[in-house]
Amino acid sequence: MRTTSVGVVRIPTKGPGDVAGLLGMIEQGEIDPKAILAILGKTEGNGGVNDFTREYAVAALCTALAPHVGLEPHRVEQRIAFVMSGGTEGVLSPHITVFTRKSIAQAPAGLADKRLSIGMAQTRDFLPEELGRSAQIEETAKAVVSAMADAGITEPKDVHFVQIKCPLLTSDRVEAASARGNTTVTTSAYSSMAYSRGASALGVAVALGEIEEGIRDQDVLRRFELFSKVASTSAGIELIHNVVIVLGNSASSASPFEIGHAVMHDAIDAAAVIEALASVGLKAGSTANTGRELVNIFAKAEASPNGNVRGFRHTMLEDTDISATRHARAAVGGLIGGLAGSGAVYVSGGAEHQGPPGGGPVAAIVRVADDSD
Amino acid sequence: MRTTSVGVVRIPTKGPGDVAGLLGMIEQGEIDPKAILAILGKTEGNGGVNDFTREYAVAALCTALAPHVGLEPHRVEQRIAFVMSGGTEGVLSPHITVFTRKSIAQAPAGLADKRLSIGMAQTRDFLPEELGRSAQIEETAKAVVSAMADAGITEPKDVHFVQIKCPLLTSDRVEAASARGNTTVTTSAYSSMAYSRGASALGVAVALGEIEEGIRDQDVLRRFELFSKVASTSAGIELIHNVVIVLGNSASSASPFEIGHAVMHDAIDAAAVIEALASVGLKAGSTANTGRELVNIFAKAEASPNGNVRGFRHTMLEDTDISATRHARAAVGGLIGGLAGSGAVYVSGGAEHQGPPGGGPVAAIVRVADDSD
Amino acid sequence: MRTTSVGVVRIPTKGPGDVAGLLGMIEQGEIDPKAILAILGKTEGNGGVNDFTREYAVAALCTALAPHVGLEPHRVEQRIAFVMSGGTEGVLSPHITVFTRKSIAQAPAGLADKRLSIGMAQTRDFLPEELGRSAQIEETAKAVVSAMADAGITEPKDVHFVQIKCPLLTSDRVEAASARGNTTVTTSAYSSMAYSRGASALGVAVALGEIEEGIRDQDVLRRFELFSKVASTSAGIELIHNVVIVLGNSASSASPFEIGHAVMHDAIDAAAVIEALASVGLKAGSTANTGRELVNIFAKAEASPNGNVRGFRHTMLEDTDISATRHARAAVGGLIGGLAGSGAVYVSGGAEHQGPPGGGPVAAIVRVADDSD
Amino acid sequence: MRTTSVGVVRIPTKGPGDVAGLLGMIEQGEIDPKAILAILGKTEGNGGVNDFTREYAVAALCTALAPHVGLEPHRVEQRIAFVMSGGTEGVLSPHITVFTRKSIAQAPAGLADKRLSIGMAQTRDFLPEELGRSAQIEETAKAVVSAMADAGITEPKDVHFVQIKCPLLTSDRVEAASARGNTTVTTSAYSSMAYSRGASALGVAVALGEIEEGIRDQDVLRRFELFSKVASTSAGIELIHNVVIVLGNSASSASPFEIGHAVMHDAIDAAAVIEALASVGLKAGSTANTGRELVNIFAKAEASPNGNVRGFRHTMLEDTDISATRHARAAVGGLIGGLAGSGAVYVSGGAEHQGPPGGGPVAAIVRVADDSD
Repeated sequence: MRTTSVGVVRIPTKGPGDVAGLLGMIEQGEIDPKAILAILGKTEGNGGVNDFTREYAVAALCTALAPHVGLEPHRVEQRIAFVMSGGTEGVLSPHITVFTRKSIAQAPAGLADKRLSIGMAQTRDFLPEELGRSAQIEETAKAVVSAMADAGITEPKDVHFVQIKCPLLTSDRVEAASARGNTTVTTSAYSSMAYSRGASALGVAVALGEIEEGIRDQDVLRRFELFSKVASTSAGIELIHNVVIVLGNSASSASPFEIGHAVMHDAIDAAAVIEALASVGLKAGSTANTGRELVNIFAKAEASPNGNVRGFRHTMLEDTDISATRHARAAVGGLIGGLAGSGAVYVSGGAEHQGPPGGGPVAAIVRVADDSD
Repeated sequence: MRTTSVGVVRIPTKGPGDVAGLLGMIEQGEIDPKAILAILGKTEGNGGVNDFTREYAVAALCTALAPHVGLEPHRVEQRIAFVMSGGTEGVLSPHITVFTRKSIAQAPAGLADKRLSIGMAQTRDFLPEELGRSAQIEETAKAVVSAMADAGITEPKDVHFVQIKCPLLTSDRVEAASARGNTTVTTSAYSSMAYSRGASALGVAVALGEIEEGIRDQDVLRRFELFSKVASTSAGIELIHNVVIVLGNSASSASPFEIGHAVMHDAIDAAAVIEALASVGLKAGSTANTGRELVNIFAKAEASPNGNVRGFRHTMLEDTDISATRHARAAVGGLIGGLAGSGAVYVSGGAEHQGPPGGGPVAAIVRVADDSD
Repeated sequence: MRTTSVGVVRIPTKGPGDVAGLLGMIEQGEIDPKAILAILGKTEGNGGVNDFTREYAVAALCTALAPHVGLEPHRVEQRIAFVMSGGTEGVLSPHITVFTRKSIAQAPAGLADKRLSIGMAQTRDFLPEELGRSAQIEETAKAVVSAMADAGITEPKDVHFVQIKCPLLTSDRVEAASARGNTTVTTSAYSSMAYSRGASALGVAVALGEIEEGIRDQDVLRRFELFSKVASTSAGIELIHNVVIVLGNSASSASPFEIGHAVMHDAIDAAAVIEALASVGLKAGSTANTGRELVNIFAKAEASPNGNVRGFRHTMLEDTDISATRHARAAVGGLIGGLAGSGAVYVSGGAEHQGPPGGGPVAAIVRVADDSD
Repeated sequence: MRTTSVGVVRIPTKGPGDVAGLLGMIEQGEIDPKAILAILGKTEGNGGVNDFTREYAVAALCTALAPHVGLEPHRVEQRIAFVMSGGTEGVLSPHITVFTRKSIAQAPAGLADKRLSIGMAQTRDFLPEELGRSAQIEETAKAVVSAMADAGITEPKDVHFVQIKCPLLTSDRVEAASARGNTTVTTSAYSSMAYSRGASALGVAVALGEIEEGIRDQDVLRRFELFSKVASTSAGIELIHNVVIVLGNSASSASPFEIGHAVMHDAIDAAAVIEALASVGLKAGSTANTGRELVNIFAKAEASPNGNVRGFRHTMLEDTDISATRHARAAVGGLIGGLAGSGAVYVSGGAEHQGPPGGGPVAAIVRVADDSD
């Protein structure tokens, strides 16, 4: 029986602090603020350690939504999950994607397929010395299971994208661990982002049975043959626990949207992008997709750790001027933007253990033009 | 009658000073050093004012080729045109493309179509105050006409790519003009690269009849509706005149290669890339291109000057951390790399007056598997 | 008769959104929020066009101060001037400096000298096509005169620092001017920052009689021999008018602080920094400044436009990886930080027409240990 | 008995490939090319992994010097040590310092003090997995002892600067180690530069008795209280062994130059710079240094690893746009440039185990105006 409906809206932004588009849709009744479960956004910072556009965007959204959900601004994050991915390199365009969920008394008739569903969960707070290690993997796996249940998804194959926001190390946090006599997995803030993303992705892979349990600390960022095909993890300075958002299709959802995915095997895997579009009934570059409209694409990008893409050397990992994550987002954003016909897509950097080395998951959400819609 | 044969080889490099691949092919007789007319390369610097990888690469090539062509190193540039485009962002891979030309006594039988031809010419040296202005436009137009004649190309429609290397302004050059009582078009070295590229491209458009004559100084970087569909211009600190290389198909060529092109209307114009590949008989992403093998793609990329790509805001022009040309190369390189199946493509930044605003030309060279080859 | 008292407090921040230090001082009664007139801050963005740390800091301060001044957050800026200078390169440390002013019934006895005073004024909103041109110069000059009056300063020699916040051009603003048939002084957002800063500084010079009136559009960013010795101007995307803050010494002030200044003639002018410190009774690098305590230093930095510093070439203007303003702030911040013994100093980039070419003003505020204090 | 004479000349360069200044001095007989022992240079790249200005400068110098020393270009490095430090941020100015040494039959009379001496040695080639670990420390210590002997320096206290050039890890080198079943100390090329610099500096400290022997792998980049007061180490992609250059004063030298040093305890330690100048009889900022002329200053800079400089937070370590080494060079270069009166000083980044955390050694070479000179 279909008991929930999930909505998805993509809204362009004019800056990290721009909430006018969202407020406009709330005022016009197109978005019910009380139904908002999660907001994923691309903001225009560097996507690195000192990217304050992420926390600025979250602060602006919390302040804007507070009166609409009847909470103090600093409590809004306890109700709505915000995942801001910094970095709109190249053609990538700043935007937010708003996910809503509400219970419905009666589902529209005639829905044959499983439809878009969303579920959420959080881990406990981590100690700095736990980041990038097995504690983070295990706690994340537990949270993924909880989020699947929350989404009404029972089978791993129906999970198409798991977005996780995870912490990073700062000088302060490294010092704190050190003061306790513990060493962190790295002392570099920038490197810690990779460790945290990697461990979180391995947690997804464990939860979905993509890899076996028993991953050890030393496997993180070393055994890249271990990965999840649907994990997308982003590190941010603004939190000290993991937030897990599961997106998939569920028989309990009466949503007018569907989600599908594919896996890019390298950063130039055009075929995988085309496959992801096809999985939800779309044809790349075509406008003649009768009855189905692309809402957004969610993908992860990374510089191939072996320094090559299909046999040709890339220079992303050895560039001291531009971080490898920025390079990778720009390139993959260019490819997906070209095939999707829009730069307002969610391409996030740092795909450690998210898809095969140098590749990453790519998911597409489509609006289905039901008669019943 | 076919009187010349033109060869093209793409060689990956391990760094800007790496000449081992080229020397290896010379030693094995695959390249006749005396037949080398031009070398186009992608080097891994920032592609900006202080990108010394371009002059380093040229210096290394001159030193390496000197004994093979019987010239002192500093005279090699008088014989061979070197065009190094800096910037291998994202998946772009450092490489050089070597063009050779030689007279032939007897052409292979059975060549029906026009085949790849190459011609070259140079302008006189420019004064700093002439850069980005009508003097540069007019001199460039004259040189394009000369280069077409050199290539044995009589009709503009057979010209598929015109690569130009042009100068930029430095503090010294601005001072020199100022000391003469003249002002340069800009005092910023970085901005001057755009002016020089733009004026050079307008010179191509004039020569090929793509626009009418009578362009004025103030049209440069302002009237972007004036452009060439085949011009590709790169600014470098190492020269003070323009070097023009015309690539096209000619009935006088007995080359085993063909060239074609299309025009990208924006940075995500996947259709144009597919069209360029189709123009030489290739199918995007396919390996089943029987009898035809892609040698390289040559394209220009730029950040749309109006700040949007298909209606969505991009952030390339307002990023103080990464120059817009690097963003654009990364994105377009990702798209072309995906459709061509390789990051070792020549994508060069700064497409002012080269293709429509935000777009640029894209040319493809293919090897045709003639029986006679 | 002394009728006002001016206070100055420097507060370190842990990030652009950090207001805890300020709120703590308000709670402890050390700062009266209703007396706050201006807050100058150094935030840790890139100081360029896309530096959102400035508007984020202002948003956070407005939200934090709103309940304390009895205004809605978006109205706080109408009462308090916020000038956030982005860029804490090298040893520079993020902080804010809070200026308060209140009327006093009875001045402390025994004040012989003029004491710190502050005054403010604003220009009207500018059209994009007015930026960097004579309209901006003239309106700024008027505002400086108003701000001096507001500060109770009657003689230009008592003005030691004039901080101005001015607008910049964005793609949108350039388009708007273009739609009106007007051209802006530049189409580059980054370049527009220099034009706006330069015109604003010339406005100060006109107001203080440092240069003659009648400056023309074409003098801006060309005739660098025209400059103010006390102007400090910063461009930001968040406003479309100029905000003028005059700091000087006044007989009407009963403040426990004094201000003095000197002019750096180039970026390595250690003597000028020492002179500025001496002008308020301090000795560089010494802790034995009995009775006088440095509060903060305010300075402007720029890359010498002729490409040299005392005869040696610098590379700041030709670096495509790091903007010249970041280079200059880092270097001058290192020098001032060394002589002042602290990196928490206000060194702002882009000193066009602020001090001689390649140099800039440097002012110091000191707390005087009066018995009466 | 004085048996050798050492010369030092500082020559500005116009670019990484500029050898005209050096060749001019050779032609004019001011430098005897056969006496050149070492050339230390500042080049204008990013100082990071992909800074090709270093190898370009070395290639240009080898090509230029080859005919003068009667060797093939690729053999010049076997005779002359080249240490190019990339990064001329802020006021730092590209230049080279040429050290010559020759035997003399008869020393000038009246030399009372020890004078400048130079000695060199090299380690064996390292395996990638040895970098940043005890093997590199031990081999470096041995080479320092050899270089002291070569310089005719018998006491550690007479050693004032030990410049080392050391390797870094690249993707290829990490792969090579991995293929042998070994792991490298890091997989990041950028991080490997810090490890290599740190281990090399610890080697100096061991050789000079500044710390005790028995340093373990895990001490590198962790126990920062272990350091050398005179080590200066630079990592470069162009070599796979360490080159050690010892500079000090020796009774066996009849050089007209002297060297002295001090230790900066943090990046704003103006007192230490003044002390270093005083150690060779110079007064900071003064031109009245009768009879003594500054030739150059050699210093190391780094971002304080604890995130603070004298209690104020810096942002260098958490900046994803500009590497911390660039920030630190810019700031320390500004301070030293100000106190020395010139930006043409050798300030090199990455001071791991070179001076106390956040600080570094600073040495000055002065020309003494002997009657006998």
